[in-house]
Amino acid sequence: MSAGAAPSVGIVGLGLIGGSLARAVVAAGGRVVATTRSTETGAAARAAGIDVVDGPAAVAASGVDVVVAATALAHLPTTVTELGAAVGADGPTVTDVGSVKGPIAALAAAVPTLVPGHPMAGTEHSGWDAGTADMFTGRTWAVAVEPPVDLERWAAVARVALVAGSQVVPVDSLEHDEVVALVSHLPYVLAALAAGSVDAETHPALARSLAAGSFASLTRVASGHPTLGAEMAVGNAAALTPVLRALAGRLVGLADALDEGRAAAVTAAFAAGRRAGDKRPPAPARSRTTLDRGGLLALGRAGGRVVAVHAATARAVDVEVLA
Amino acid sequence: MSAGAAPSVGIVGLGLIGGSLARAVVAAGGRVVATTRSTETGAAARAAGIDVVDGPAAVAASGVDVVVAATALAHLPTTVTELGAAVGADGPTVTDVGSVKGPIAALAAAVPTLVPGHPMAGTEHSGWDAGTADMFTGRTWAVAVEPPVDLERWAAVARVALVAGSQVVPVDSLEHDEVVALVSHLPYVLAALAAGSVDAETHPALARSLAAGSFASLTRVASGHPTLGAEMAVGNAAALTPVLRALAGRLVGLADALDEGRAAAVTAAFAAGRRAGDKRPPAPARSRTTLDRGGLLALGRAGGRVVAVHAATARAVDVEVLA
Repeated sequence: MSAGAAPSVGIVGLGLIGGSLARAVVAAGGRVVATTRSTETGAAARAAGIDVVDGPAAVAASGVDVVVAATALAHLPTTVTELGAAVGADGPTVTDVGSVKGPIAALAAAVPTLVPGHPMAGTEHSGWDAGTADMFTGRTWAVAVEPPVDLERWAAVARVALVAGSQVVPVDSLEHDEVVALVSHLPYVLAALAAGSVDAETHPALARSLAAGSFASLTRVASGHPTLGAEMAVGNAAALTPVLRALAGRLVGLADALDEGRAAAVTAAFAAGRRAGDKRPPAPARSRTTLDRGGLLALGRAGGRVVAVHAATARAVDVEVLA
Repeated sequence: MSAGAAPSVGIVGLGLIGGSLARAVVAAGGRVVATTRSTETGAAARAAGIDVVDGPAAVAASGVDVVVAATALAHLPTTVTELGAAVGADGPTVTDVGSVKGPIAALAAAVPTLVPGHPMAGTEHSGWDAGTADMFTGRTWAVAVEPPVDLERWAAVARVALVAGSQVVPVDSLEHDEVVALVSHLPYVLAALAAGSVDAETHPALARSLAAGSFASLTRVASGHPTLGAEMAVGNAAALTPVLRALAGRLVGLADALDEGRAAAVTAAFAAGRRAGDKRPPAPARSRTTLDRGGLLALGRAGGRVVAVHAATARAVDVEVLA
């Protein structure tokens, strides 16, 4: 594949994320071969210019550059394993879109072409109909770089993310899981617990009457996909439980400070949140550079992103970065 | 004042809420007399058709129907007391817009024309420039009905809320404070604590890179007004601390369930949030009715709202309701 052409992409699963990616690649002029277990979704996808085939093995054998596992989170390890068996050691690169990377990264020995990924996008809705071609525009997309990554395959996955409009963040899978426990999975937990607390009020209907924008923002993701929150929590339990316990401790600490009239401690807690919320990185500079695995990892840890891939070997990539 | 005419409104403080209310009343054809300690805001308000006078006493003496205390939360008791002294027992009705009603309701003996209120509206921004005439459109506005309320004065405050585009929820001040601890103040606490947690991560820049829509929703209100969150927490501490401790207990319970692999308990926690988040009251019926204090309180507890006021005496109001 030349650096400028849109990649050809296989997709297993055409829900919110898979369906949006399919639309985005088609919109960019790329070829998409996909499979779905829904007859209705298959018909809609064909009408949208997608080559719909029968099952993951047919996707893997279709000659695409990259095959993307985009089934439900709990089924992703099975899908990735199945794709790995179908593509072998020399076939298309296999990636996924799951929000927990540890269990996928653990499949690297069994799936030699695997490069785990995670687009930081989505809505509280689900299914093909909820997808859009611009779902990933301006978002970040994590792509794993830990051993035994082949950077030529890493670059192939990065090109899929880039053609969908995202910026690519190189990550270590376990560091990714620690970070998303806070910035992605905790919001789902808090949305669910806060929304569920309304019915425990003495006057729940009054509570709903007086709930305004701040409560709507807090609970927005609680009403969406029926099992996604629980799947993410269970899937990322090792990283999530310390985050939950730490927040519980902070909540009790704040309650103690309020009970004891320590206003300065209360003010400090809110001021820390405000400073962090206001923190924006300086306007990043765009530059072209050659990076190995360690360089990519350092870039991601520092908040940098890959915005174009010019060339790649197994050991290094020639990329443009924002850093 | 006739039932159909827009009320004349005095406003002390032209920040986000006072400034938005001033614009809304002017847009509805009402007269606004206001005071602000900012020369710039005063000039901007005059240009917007507001009669700007010098100090709360001048507002109180201007012949308006209702005077609204709209200063910062921590200063509201002082402003309400000052307005009470200026209007006496027979002057304009005094109300406020604070998110904690207990400390205002406690001033009822000293301010005989007082009817506490709280518009359930606002944004993460502050100040006159952030205000809009439609800030209250389609929102609810809590107006207190506990003794010694004079329902003719209650109706005067309700008319201000209605002319601003809100629906009026009759509340007991202490029940209001319990409910908003969950639906309004808790979201500020969680936004601040979650935003503040990012800097405690091993790789905070990576965390910011991977933070997407769910984290942005959770932390939206953390970056706004510099002291509002802490003021609300301190002001409503008695109602807020049980909410914080209860949520801390639920977080620890969820962490325990995750650590122990009790997936059913995890699923149940998310399902409860989803059911509550999906719960919408049945389409309410609009009807005209005469209600006393107890009837108004029951209406509010049941999730009902007042949407028009036809007439009022000290003991009863003739209103249209959604219930």
